[in-house]
Amino acid sequence: MGRQPVDFSAWLTERVEHVENVLEQLLPSDTTLPSHLHEAMRYAVLGGGKRVRAALVYAAGEASLQSGTAASAQQIALDHAAAAVELIHAYSLIHDDLPCMDDDSLRRGRPTVHVKFDEATAMLAGDALQPLAFELLGLMPIAPALTVQATQLLARSAGSLGMVGGQAIDCDSVGHALTIEQLQQMHSMKTGALLEASVLLGGIVAGAGSATRKGLESYAAAVGLAFQVVDDILDVTSDTATLGKTAGKDAAENKPTYVSIMGLDGSRDLLASLRDQAHAALLPLGPTAARLAGIADYIVGRDR
Amino acid sequence: MGRQPVDFSAWLTERVEHVENVLEQLLPSDTTLPSHLHEAMRYAVLGGGKRVRAALVYAAGEASLQSGTAASAQQIALDHAAAAVELIHAYSLIHDDLPCMDDDSLRRGRPTVHVKFDEATAMLAGDALQPLAFELLGLMPIAPALTVQATQLLARSAGSLGMVGGQAIDCDSVGHALTIEQLQQMHSMKTGALLEASVLLGGIVAGAGSATRKGLESYAAAVGLAFQVVDDILDVTSDTATLGKTAGKDAAENKPTYVSIMGLDGSRDLLASLRDQAHAALLPLGPTAARLAGIADYIVGRDR
Repeated sequence: MGRQPVDFSAWLTERVEHVENVLEQLLPSDTTLPSHLHEAMRYAVLGGGKRVRAALVYAAGEASLQSGTAASAQQIALDHAAAAVELIHAYSLIHDDLPCMDDDSLRRGRPTVHVKFDEATAMLAGDALQPLAFELLGLMPIAPALTVQATQLLARSAGSLGMVGGQAIDCDSVGHALTIEQLQQMHSMKTGALLEASVLLGGIVAGAGSATRKGLESYAAAVGLAFQVVDDILDVTSDTATLGKTAGKDAAENKPTYVSIMGLDGSRDLLASLRDQAHAALLPLGPTAARLAGIADYIVGRDR
Repeated sequence: MGRQPVDFSAWLTERVEHVENVLEQLLPSDTTLPSHLHEAMRYAVLGGGKRVRAALVYAAGEASLQSGTAASAQQIALDHAAAAVELIHAYSLIHDDLPCMDDDSLRRGRPTVHVKFDEATAMLAGDALQPLAFELLGLMPIAPALTVQATQLLARSAGSLGMVGGQAIDCDSVGHALTIEQLQQMHSMKTGALLEASVLLGGIVAGAGSATRKGLESYAAAVGLAFQVVDDILDVTSDTATLGKTAGKDAAENKPTYVSIMGLDGSRDLLASLRDQAHAALLPLGPTAARLAGIADYIVGRDR
């Protein structure tokens, strides 16, 4: 983040704190029955995290607003959309960490949900976060037709042709050699689909027209891929303490990664080119897209 | 079903076949990537089942239509709503059967999904069926405001204050004594919420007014509870072959049930009273509610 202009860094910090408060408010209280389940849901969601998806919702909202300032109803809708994508992301992490999947005990520097609670509670917490995301979208105070579009988009991005489908391909690929095209396809589903949905949700809520949506889609595709390339680089260049999750896991499990296929230099070249693509896609959107440009730089900058 | 008038039995058979075809069409093909995941989703959903939830959607639609006949768009919307509740139900069964939950190997007389495939695939198949349900609701060709209502209802019924919450209470209750009020609360969430949502979804899609919705809610509450009481009775009076799932499991695991708390006679008395409640709730709806009355009798009749 040191490479960002101060105002972007301050904006991101403020948005991360803001969405944390929003999530805190929108999640069921842990005094509401079943309290054990709600405690696990809150533990999973409120445990920090970079909140990149939420930031993308807000930044895309800002880039798409006609007047430049969100009306109060739009602000509430952006909050709900930002919370919804973070809930889907949080549920996917809970399930990915389970013993039958990645069997990971550390996430964001804390015990994973099934370690802190138990496997059944972890699975159910994930199962309950998913419909909560759709419920929050349904509560957006915008035109119902836009809510339906938003719901469709989130549902597709989370399903068997999006995030979960990518996860399934990832599971099937352990120990197999993948081509760069297959790896790209897997990641565009597993990580890219929800990142792309985050960008488009912000646009939908803010009333983006079709030209703006097209720019957002192109930006989102580049950023979604960049995100995964950085993750793969960090898995080999970082240690567990810095990463907040177990480092070197992919290599240990013989999972194909960008680094294993393209090497470290090749991966960094790809990253630079994806950053250029993201910036190019934003050009037609003008100066209101500055936050989106900042996020692209921020994501690429995680590699330093 | 022998106690039903022939026309109800024929109607139910036709609806069960119809929704099977609808699900067959709406589920991703198992030749679409990731094919392994889609195969598991189809195995779980298309494996038969009583389709009570789908039948409730159609019957409630019939009871709520102003003209008595569904227009083509309404028929499509009812199909999507019926498929959506069946997908949510199917996903919940996959996850309930997993080793970290009930650890069951038999469902509808066939190997459970994690036995037929593997645990990771079973979890992901459940995870992918859930957003598909919301996607199908979003594709209903009705007024967007009604779609938003339907989505909200399904999301709540599936979440931590509905189905998943009831499941969490069920897990926490193993080996504990529950009062009849606590048992009722657990079941009204775990099973009742989705059954009730099925009834109300049919009403929403067919444009039910508030008076009709009130009758549907009251009917649904009675039928939801009756369904669980019958399940508890069958768990002790049936054998595994008849049931298509492992019989006597609740007693073996010291799980509280209606039978363990009220005895067999007490449970059957409760069942008769719930059936009366269901019929009474339908009186104001008139003759178009005949299918709903038939389903109440059918559910109670499973105890024979």
